[in-house]
Amino acid sequence: MIIITGHVLARPDSIDELCALSLDHVRRSRAEPGCISHAVHIDIEDPLRLVFLETWSDREAVGAHFAVPESLAFVKAARGLAAEPPVIAVYEARPLGM
Amino acid sequence: MIIITGHVLARPDSIDELCALSLDHVRRSRAEPGCISHAVHIDIEDPLRLVFLETWSDREAVGAHFAVPESLAFVKAARGLAAEPPVIAVYEARPLGM
Repeated sequence: MIIITGHVLARPDSIDELCALSLDHVRRSRAEPGCISHAVHIDIEDPLRLVFLETWSDREAVGAHFAVPESLAFVKAARGLAAEPPVIAVYEARPLGM
Repeated sequence: MIIITGHVLARPDSIDELCALSLDHVRRSRAEPGCISHAVHIDIEDPLRLVFLETWSDREAVGAHFAVPESLAFVKAARGLAAEPPVIAVYEARPLGM
């Protein structure tokens, strides 16, 4: 499976719009093939920082997700509303029984 | 590396205490050997849901973290403040260049 994490720092004047756009993106993404989970959160230590956590079935699903026009539009909009460049990390992951 | 995700649903009367305890746990854990990142967040869709995201260097570091008395005390306290049993997942993870 694939885990994606990401974070974006909003500006005080952009946090509400960024939250709304992020929620639209999350809810749309959940309906895509291979999406196991997709959610967005506020960092308790920084109320302007949005943190994304996603799990996907495989690389192909993530590749298709990244190519969805609405995903690309979201990334572009998020960049415009961010105080600094958003960060994203993609991992191949295997559940452990710890 | 290891990724740990977790979430716990607070009660309206326990959310403030659970946030404070979680933040103490996060900040204490960051100083432990092998901790790459450790943070706690509020789910945008549910202000009573706390979501943890942690990255560790290896299994041994996670095993030591789980055995720290303060970690065990935090888990016990979090269970007592939760509206439903907390959920935790541990993954062996490899960064991808996607």
